[in-house]
Amino acid sequence: MNKADQHFSANSGASVGVVVPQTAHFDEPIMLACGRELSNYDLVYETYGELNETKSNAVLICHALSGNHHAAGVHSEQDSKPGWWNECIGPGKPIDTNKFFVLSLNNLGGCHGSTGPTSINPDTGKPWGPDFPVLRARDWVHTQARLADRLGIACWAAVVGGSLGGMQAMRWSLEYPQRVKHCVTIASAMKLSAQNIAFNEIARQAIISDTGFAGGRYLESDSVPAKGLGLARMVGHITYLSDDAMARKFGRNLRSGTLETGNDDSIEFQVESYLRYQGSQFSENFDANTYILMTRALDYFDLAREYNNDPVAAFSQASCSFLVLSFSTDWRFSPQRSLEIVNALIAAGRPVSYAEIEANQGHDAFLLPIPRYLDVFNAYMQRVAVNL
Amino acid sequence: MNKADQHFSANSGASVGVVVPQTAHFDEPIMLACGRELSNYDLVYETYGELNETKSNAVLICHALSGNHHAAGVHSEQDSKPGWWNECIGPGKPIDTNKFFVLSLNNLGGCHGSTGPTSINPDTGKPWGPDFPVLRARDWVHTQARLADRLGIACWAAVVGGSLGGMQAMRWSLEYPQRVKHCVTIASAMKLSAQNIAFNEIARQAIISDTGFAGGRYLESDSVPAKGLGLARMVGHITYLSDDAMARKFGRNLRSGTLETGNDDSIEFQVESYLRYQGSQFSENFDANTYILMTRALDYFDLAREYNNDPVAAFSQASCSFLVLSFSTDWRFSPQRSLEIVNALIAAGRPVSYAEIEANQGHDAFLLPIPRYLDVFNAYMQRVAVNL
Repeated sequence: MNKADQHFSANSGASVGVVVPQTAHFDEPIMLACGRELSNYDLVYETYGELNETKSNAVLICHALSGNHHAAGVHSEQDSKPGWWNECIGPGKPIDTNKFFVLSLNNLGGCHGSTGPTSINPDTGKPWGPDFPVLRARDWVHTQARLADRLGIACWAAVVGGSLGGMQAMRWSLEYPQRVKHCVTIASAMKLSAQNIAFNEIARQAIISDTGFAGGRYLESDSVPAKGLGLARMVGHITYLSDDAMARKFGRNLRSGTLETGNDDSIEFQVESYLRYQGSQFSENFDANTYILMTRALDYFDLAREYNNDPVAAFSQASCSFLVLSFSTDWRFSPQRSLEIVNALIAAGRPVSYAEIEANQGHDAFLLPIPRYLDVFNAYMQRVAVNL
Repeated sequence: MNKADQHFSANSGASVGVVVPQTAHFDEPIMLACGRELSNYDLVYETYGELNETKSNAVLICHALSGNHHAAGVHSEQDSKPGWWNECIGPGKPIDTNKFFVLSLNNLGGCHGSTGPTSINPDTGKPWGPDFPVLRARDWVHTQARLADRLGIACWAAVVGGSLGGMQAMRWSLEYPQRVKHCVTIASAMKLSAQNIAFNEIARQAIISDTGFAGGRYLESDSVPAKGLGLARMVGHITYLSDDAMARKFGRNLRSGTLETGNDDSIEFQVESYLRYQGSQFSENFDANTYILMTRALDYFDLAREYNNDPVAAFSQASCSFLVLSFSTDWRFSPQRSLEIVNALIAAGRPVSYAEIEANQGHDAFLLPIPRYLDVFNAYMQRVAVNL
């Protein structure tokens, strides 16, 4: 790994630079898993790197709950905030844009440009809002496949995702076994636990209980469920971090006031004001109906449901190789959940590489530049690049 | 432990029977830690067992966040729901009412009869609401001491509590070292972690964000922050249970609908409807301002703050013996937190017994009839009873 280490230190600042989102419009109706049909839709996406002549070097990035198409680079020279997976995508990075053509899209139902609850429902001329169809991970996979068709990509060198993104990557391996050579599933699970569903339910109830939600028709009533969405984000923030990570980041430090008497209304711990700030920021940048839709897709996801609840039978449909990664302190998508994936893959005879990364950042670790994580990820992707 | 096992199985149905709450009124003003004075107040309490002649067999029960004075027995022959710690208090149970006189009160600031935010503020003639003084654990200890004075109890055989109750028990050992012979601290901590504070902050924000909260003056405006309080309770429910406990209790079972299409609005997992029901029940039985006050007391609690942040210096003030208990899957008050207490006690030269109980129910375990828990608790209390 020494060579890789040097490689990363030399390229830690490397970026794909300024990127411009594109929009693909689809006029062919799509039948959704829920039984409803969408007559047309847009998908907004970004690409990084160059598609090779044989179109064999394409990597698909699937985003998680609150993600979007902007995974790497910046939107202008002045833009100080790069895409959400900039640590992993770029020249010399694990998903090396010198070798791969990377496609990252905003999923159907999203709120960053792709058709979703904030789009206009052609039947009513008003925003879809709560009437937008319920989506499942397979709907995303199908629409992603159509986008691949549009770009002439017959087979992905790799489909890659963390968390909910990892669920999509696994679903790809079952829905289109001939169109995926490698599946990279990071900090994910074959299905959520009751505890995970419960946390998502708190988030949804927080949103729905906000009077600003107006039954989901807040865009029509000119209200915003900002507090509810902020609370939902707070739940995410706490549970995606480990206890240790919060202790290191905040401890019990006060932002203001004094604990001696506990009498000052302005007393607050730093962790409180941080959460309120993050919650308030999020509510300005994310759509409440999309948040509900995405958490529902997470809850409903059950890889093996249509395979007699047998994960081995499910993965027997796949024909790609797998990389599975987990993080030691991730308590919402614990290493145990990843091991279940690995065990099913082995029983199904699929080639699989697995690593549990020691990291104290909880579920958030999959977004962070943890050296061993980047090393393992990079080593696997170099193998992918050899056989393009 | 065989004898103890037989003992419990023979007495598992034993109860203190029908109990009648009593109210003690205090006219002497009390200076609170926040610097404000309360001119008079009521404390509602229950007692179980008989006070002996020398008044040496009294045990004080300190309640946790959502607890109250009704710890054991029932309120009528028809009452099917016994007090919250009925598993541990009664004839032949760990806190054996054949041997001990047990006192359980509703803390100041509570909402079950003791003076608190729902009481009338004598200065305004309206409910205190959000103007009720901020309380700290030591305020409870001081008011509990006055109640002991009233009953002629010079020294407790034991002060006992779980969670926030355990914090009060520890504070007792420092504030009144000559008035406590044994301190039993269960599933507690010397101070909360940032993660714990963060979960409490979510609960508070859920309540405050509810328009029914009306800035805390809901009693005056005839509104109820039912949804916010329900959400707060949901956070508690999820985090006080272990992941395993939720999996066993609910799994991914559906209450209604089908996951095949994910299209039915009525689809919900059992865990969702359970949480909504519990949240809604709680909001009918608990006061929102009290919930905020109690979580603030939890967050502020820091055993060693006034002792140069040195727990050893703090416990050097104590002169009682200690029993410390923790539960293996309790992730909000983990065994690590209990071990910190034990280590400080040992360094301070205090006698301490410690057990980590294997239990898969998370923080809630302290309320449940787990055989080894009851055995250890019982064995310790028998020792307490020997030297009354």
